Amino acid sequence: MDLLMDRDALAAFLQRDFAEVAADFSVERVGTDGVDLRLRVGAGHLRPGGTVSGPSIFALADVAMYLAILSRIGPVALAVTTNASIDFMRKPAAGCDLIGKARLLKLGKTLAVGDVLVFSDGASDPVARAGLTYAIPPRRVEGS
Amino acid sequence: MDLLMDRDALAAFLQRDFAEVAADFSVERVGTDGVDLRLRVGAGHLRPGGTVSGPSIFALADVAMYLAILSRIGPVALAVTTNASIDFMRKPAAGCDLIGKARLLKLGKTLAVGDVLVFSDGASDPVARAGLTYAIPPRRVEGS
Amino acid sequence: MDLLMDRDALAAFLQRDFAEVAADFSVERVGTDGVDLRLRVGAGHLRPGGTVSGPSIFALADVAMYLAILSRIGPVALAVTTNASIDFMRKPAAGCDLIGKARLLKLGKTLAVGDVLVFSDGASDPVARAGLTYAIPPRRVEGS
Amino acid sequence: MDLLMDRDALAAFLQRDFAEVAADFSVERVGTDGVDLRLRVGAGHLRPGGTVSGPSIFALADVAMYLAILSRIGPVALAVTTNASIDFMRKPAAGCDLIGKARLLKLGKTLAVGDVLVFSDGASDPVARAGLTYAIPPRRVEGS
Repeated sequence: MDLLMDRDALAAFLQRDFAEVAADFSVERVGTDGVDLRLRVGAGHLRPGGTVSGPSIFALADVAMYLAILSRIGPVALAVTTNASIDFMRKPAAGCDLIGKARLLKLGKTLAVGDVLVFSDGASDPVARAGLTYAIPPRRVEGS
Repeated sequence: MDLLMDRDALAAFLQRDFAEVAADFSVERVGTDGVDLRLRVGAGHLRPGGTVSGPSIFALADVAMYLAILSRIGPVALAVTTNASIDFMRKPAAGCDLIGKARLLKLGKTLAVGDVLVFSDGASDPVARAGLTYAIPPRRVEGS
Repeated sequence: MDLLMDRDALAAFLQRDFAEVAADFSVERVGTDGVDLRLRVGAGHLRPGGTVSGPSIFALADVAMYLAILSRIGPVALAVTTNASIDFMRKPAAGCDLIGKARLLKLGKTLAVGDVLVFSDGASDPVARAGLTYAIPPRRVEGS
Repeated sequence: MDLLMDRDALAAFLQRDFAEVAADFSVERVGTDGVDLRLRVGAGHLRPGGTVSGPSIFALADVAMYLAILSRIGPVALAVTTNASIDFMRKPAAGCDLIGKARLLKLGKTLAVGDVLVFSDGASDPVARAGLTYAIPPRRVEGS
């Protein structure tokens, strides 16, 4: 179970392929068990009342799991989210980044599955949990 | 089964309480069975390759169901999304708005449940489907 | 969009390949849009208090969607459930069969997606809704 | 964070209130973080090919989380499953019990949320994962 992309490689990938949102995210940790990703919460992520919006939490979970998959299969593949199920459990703390901890549970030939716990930075009770599935396109044969 | 908010009332609510994103959405239809909501797809909703991002589709489903609930209980309540499960089925058509058709399946005292089909405008095969649950806060007693 | 298996063919398939549970189910309707399946509720499906158990409702949704897929791709394929998301919305009526109405939303080469509404027989408010995804194994080449 | 029911109390509860299925399950561990529950796999849980059926895996996840909630709020409450989202990731090993490891992530006044990993006994790669939500009825006032 090797890592094909480390923290720097994932950060560079984000910068290049997700330029629009790369500034929102910071890769905190990459391991064989998964990836921790920070959402730098800014005004654009907030809902009335100052809480982080659901779509922003969804985006954090989705990108965290995507990077966890890429760390294992490399940047060539183009995985696509096919299912996401999220439970929103607590209001995020105000004025606080969010950390998504993605755990890869299955990396198959055509499907990858994992889950993500989302925390307000420094808190121990999760804001949200998500289960996500990605379709992995057929691997292209080297040199073809 | 009466509607407490019609199309104009929902549009005004969006404008006032969701000012940041109100310009992205247009309420197309409001009925006792649900709400059709348009996502005016702009550059900010796109992912590399020109496809609409997952978080944007999530936001469309979430707001459509939220408005379907408000149309039935009025603007005083503050419903909160507790669960969302989305299947992403097809790539949205390029250069095309998305329409979310929200259907309210249960409106209980504490929970509301519904589902949403998301279509590229004019297409018949759905881009995504979502099931969503909202917690409805206890109704405040009149005059209190 | 042709049907490869009609009601009799699906009933025969259930009888042969799902002998243990075939007596619990009755195929009510098969169309190009989906399948209606009856769960003949018996003592084995009940929970304390006389309500139908969650696993029984899950089984109804799962089998209904499975048959909807088979009706379109024929009995050779061995589809496998990869994801199911269920909302339990109302207590089923006592002493009453359940009807699962499965709707196929996507039939792709490797994934099929659909949703199911479950009703107490004769009722108009759904007991449950489910979204389900199936992995479809690669089609075997004819004659191989 | 105290436990109101230990392993023996949960086993006795299963025996009394879930008599029909109690023999299928064995409470392996109870902690403040959750519950491990064994499904004693028998002929009634199998699908053609000898694999454990989806509804049986669902039942294991559902009962494991239910017991995790009861261990914290006691046997008086009648929690009801409102949402379950399951990913089926691997075929269970043949002739092998399943272990569901339930983790309680939120125990609120009206909703409890948790997730479950399901393993073939002794295996390290999960067969399935589930996120589950329960509605908790209002606590009855003592003596009323």
